[in-house]
Amino acid sequence: MTLIVLNFKTYRESTGSEALRLAEICEDISRDYSVQIVVVPQVADIQTISKAVKIPVYAQHVDGVGYGGFTGHVTAASLKAAGAVGSLINHSERRLKLADIEASISACSLVGLKTIVCTNNVATTRASAALEPDYVAVEPPELIGSGIPVSKANPLVISQSVDAVKRIAPKVGVLCGAGITHGEDLRSALQLGSVGVLLASGIIKAKDQRKALEDLVTGARK
Amino acid sequence: MTLIVLNFKTYRESTGSEALRLAEICEDISRDYSVQIVVVPQVADIQTISKAVKIPVYAQHVDGVGYGGFTGHVTAASLKAAGAVGSLINHSERRLKLADIEASISACSLVGLKTIVCTNNVATTRASAALEPDYVAVEPPELIGSGIPVSKANPLVISQSVDAVKRIAPKVGVLCGAGITHGEDLRSALQLGSVGVLLASGIIKAKDQRKALEDLVTGARK
Amino acid sequence: MTLIVLNFKTYRESTGSEALRLAEICEDISRDYSVQIVVVPQVADIQTISKAVKIPVYAQHVDGVGYGGFTGHVTAASLKAAGAVGSLINHSERRLKLADIEASISACSLVGLKTIVCTNNVATTRASAALEPDYVAVEPPELIGSGIPVSKANPLVISQSVDAVKRIAPKVGVLCGAGITHGEDLRSALQLGSVGVLLASGIIKAKDQRKALEDLVTGARK
Amino acid sequence: MTLIVLNFKTYRESTGSEALRLAEICEDISRDYSVQIVVVPQVADIQTISKAVKIPVYAQHVDGVGYGGFTGHVTAASLKAAGAVGSLINHSERRLKLADIEASISACSLVGLKTIVCTNNVATTRASAALEPDYVAVEPPELIGSGIPVSKANPLVISQSVDAVKRIAPKVGVLCGAGITHGEDLRSALQLGSVGVLLASGIIKAKDQRKALEDLVTGARK
Repeated sequence: MTLIVLNFKTYRESTGSEALRLAEICEDISRDYSVQIVVVPQVADIQTISKAVKIPVYAQHVDGVGYGGFTGHVTAASLKAAGAVGSLINHSERRLKLADIEASISACSLVGLKTIVCTNNVATTRASAALEPDYVAVEPPELIGSGIPVSKANPLVISQSVDAVKRIAPKVGVLCGAGITHGEDLRSALQLGSVGVLLASGIIKAKDQRKALEDLVTGARK
Repeated sequence: MTLIVLNFKTYRESTGSEALRLAEICEDISRDYSVQIVVVPQVADIQTISKAVKIPVYAQHVDGVGYGGFTGHVTAASLKAAGAVGSLINHSERRLKLADIEASISACSLVGLKTIVCTNNVATTRASAALEPDYVAVEPPELIGSGIPVSKANPLVISQSVDAVKRIAPKVGVLCGAGITHGEDLRSALQLGSVGVLLASGIIKAKDQRKALEDLVTGARK
Repeated sequence: MTLIVLNFKTYRESTGSEALRLAEICEDISRDYSVQIVVVPQVADIQTISKAVKIPVYAQHVDGVGYGGFTGHVTAASLKAAGAVGSLINHSERRLKLADIEASISACSLVGLKTIVCTNNVATTRASAALEPDYVAVEPPELIGSGIPVSKANPLVISQSVDAVKRIAPKVGVLCGAGITHGEDLRSALQLGSVGVLLASGIIKAKDQRKALEDLVTGARK
Repeated sequence: MTLIVLNFKTYRESTGSEALRLAEICEDISRDYSVQIVVVPQVADIQTISKAVKIPVYAQHVDGVGYGGFTGHVTAASLKAAGAVGSLINHSERRLKLADIEASISACSLVGLKTIVCTNNVATTRASAALEPDYVAVEPPELIGSGIPVSKANPLVISQSVDAVKRIAPKVGVLCGAGITHGEDLRSALQLGSVGVLLASGIIKAKDQRKALEDLVTGARK
C-alpha cells in the first residue's frame, strides 16, 4: 500500500492548533480515499495529535539515547509514551552522525517504533539500508522545497536507490522525496520502484491544504 | 523568592506517566510549602503536564529557529503552544554553539518564554550573562550527578559568578547546580548569592521523590 | 597599529604552493608599506609558511583540547610547534559551542597563542569579549563574501560592538569583517573604532592579489 | 601485506618534534622488519614528517569540502599538498555525520587519497563498507585506550565485520583496533580475518616506543 508521509517541519501552518487541524484533514483524506498517510508533527504536538487521530503519528527526529542523563534529547521512550509509532531519522535539516543513526534505529527497535532514515544520494542510501531501518527515504537536498519533483528532475537517484537497497537489505522499503506536490509526482515515484513519498511544503504551504492533498491522492490514480 | 528548577532529564522515573506523577508531586510541595518549583520534563511530555499542573513548565532545550524548514528542531512557538513558559538553554548534556544560544534567547523573547542559560564556569557565565537571558545557571560539569554539592565542593564558582553577573548584566538572576540534593545544599547556594538551584538525580532517583523534595525545601529553612 | 588579517579559507588560490606564494606577497606589502598583515592559511600549510615568512601566521581554527586522545582535533600545542602565533576561533564557517570557545581561548593562552574570536552580531560580540580573547572580529554572516563592505552596509554593528567591548573588556581589540575589499572600506572600519579588518575573497579571488592588497593599504591612507 | 596504522592522536609524545622522531622510528621498523607501517600525525605535523620519511603519512581527519569558503576545515587538497597519502575518517574521537563521511570519501577519491573509515560495531561497519572506502576499521569504543585488546575481548566483532564487508563490498579491507598493544593481539586480529590493525596509546605511551613497536611486529610472527 502506498505510503504518504507528510512532514510538518516547523511551519506556522503546521504548529500547535494548526498542526492538529492539518492532522485531522490527513485523517479524513486517508479514510475517504483509502490511502495510508503518516503525519509527522513537531515533538511538542505529538501528544494532542496522537490522541485526536487514528492515522500513524511519527516524530521528526529521535536521539539514540535511553533513560538517563540526556537533558534536551528526544528519546524513543518519550515518543512512544506520547503516542508516536515511528520517527524520521537523519532528515536533511537534522543530519546525524553515522553512529547516532545506528543508535537511533536501535533505540526505536527496542520500544517498537518504526524508522525512516533520510538520505541524500545513492551512496548514503546504500549505507543507511545496511543499518536495516524500516524505510530509507532518498531526498536530493538541492530539490527539497524547490517545487521541482525528484521523480522528474532526478529519476535515476530513485531507481538506483531501489536497486541498491534490494541487493543490500531487501526488506527495507524505499521512499523518495523533495519537490513532490502533485499526483503525477507521486505516480512517477511509484513507477520508479519506491513504495511512497515524503513531502512537506507542497501541501503545507498550499492555499487549500485539503484540496492539495486530494489532488495528490486522486492525481496519482489517473 | 527562591527558585527550585527540577530537570527531569530522560530518566525512566520522569518519562511519560511518571513525568506527570512527578510534576503533580512538585505542585503539591510548591503549594504546601510556598516555594516556587519549575518542572522541566521532556518535550513530548510538556502538553499533558502543562494541562495538569499550575506550576511553571519549562523545556530542556529550545532551538534558535523560527517557522519554516527546520525538521526535527524544537521551536519556541511549539513549546509555547504546548503550554511551556520557559526553557533551559545550553545544558551541559546539550551544549550549543554561541550563535545558537543567542538565537535561542531571541526566539524565546519573541514568544515570551523565560530563559535559563546553563554554563560550566565563571568565564562562560560572564559570556552568557552578556546575552541577557532571564537566568544563568552555573554547573561545574564534573559535579553533575555526583552527589557532591557544588555549594560545598566549589563555593567560589557560585560567588564569583554572582559577582561577575552583577557587573555585566545585573538584571540576570544566577542559579547554581550540580550535586544539589539536600536542604543544606540549597541553603548554602542561597547564602552564596544565587537565587535558586537546578537539580535532577538527587530528587528523581530518590527512593521517595516526595520526601526528597520535602527534605530539600524544609531543610533549607533550618 | 592597524591590523589586516587575511583569511586564506580553503580557496584554490591559497592552498599548498599557492598559499606560500600569497604569504610572501603579504610579507612584501607588510614591509614595503609598514602595515601589520597576519596570514591565516590552512593548518596543513602552516609549517612551510611560518618558516618562509616573518609576518605572523595564525590558524583558522583551534580546538580547546590538550594532549591526549583527541584524534582529528587541532591542538594549540601542534599549531605552536608548527610556527603559528595565533588562531581564529569560531569563524562563521566553523562555529563552536560556547564552552569550546572558552576552552580554545584557554588552550591558546597556555601556550602563548593570540586569539581572535569571530562573532555575528553585537550580542555575541559582548559575550565573546567577556571571555577576554585578544580580539573579537564582528562579521555579519549575510555580508561575508558578498563584496558589500560591512562598514558601509552596517556601520552600527561596528560602532556598537566597539562601545560594548569597551564597557565589558576594554583590553580586547575589535576587528570587523565581511565584504571588506578596498582601501575606503578599511578606512571607514577604522573610523568606526575598530583596530583592523578580517578579509578574504576580496583579496584572494582578485585577478592580481598583490595589486589588490596594495590598493587596500594605500587606499586606506588617502 | 599486514597493515599497521599508528594513530598519533594528540599525545605529547607524538606532537611536533616528538612526532617527527616517532615517525622516524616507524620508518626504521618498517624497513628492518619489512612490515607496512602508516603514521597518522596531527595535520600541523604532516608537512615535516612527509618530507622526512618514506613510509605513508595519513591525516587523522578530513572534511568533505572542496575549494572555497570553508574556514577551519581540513581539505583533501591541502593534505595532498602537504604530502599525506590518505586519511582516517570518522574516528571515535571525531565522529562525522553520515552525509559527511560520504563527502569525505568522495573528496579523497578526487585527489587520490586513501581512506580508512572507523566504525564502532558490525552495523556501522556494514554501512561504512557500503560507501566503499579503501578500508573500514572497527573499534569498539569501550576498548579504545583500555589496554584490553579487541581481538581478545570481542573477537566476534572482528570476524562478523569481515564477513559482512565480504558480502557488501568485497574490495574494502577490514582493519580492527582498540586495546591492540602486543604481537599476539596483532596475530589474533589477522587470524580473525582483518588485514591489519589501528593502534595508538599502546605504542605511543610506551616507555620505549621503538621496543614496543618491535615487540608488536616480531611477536605477531611467533
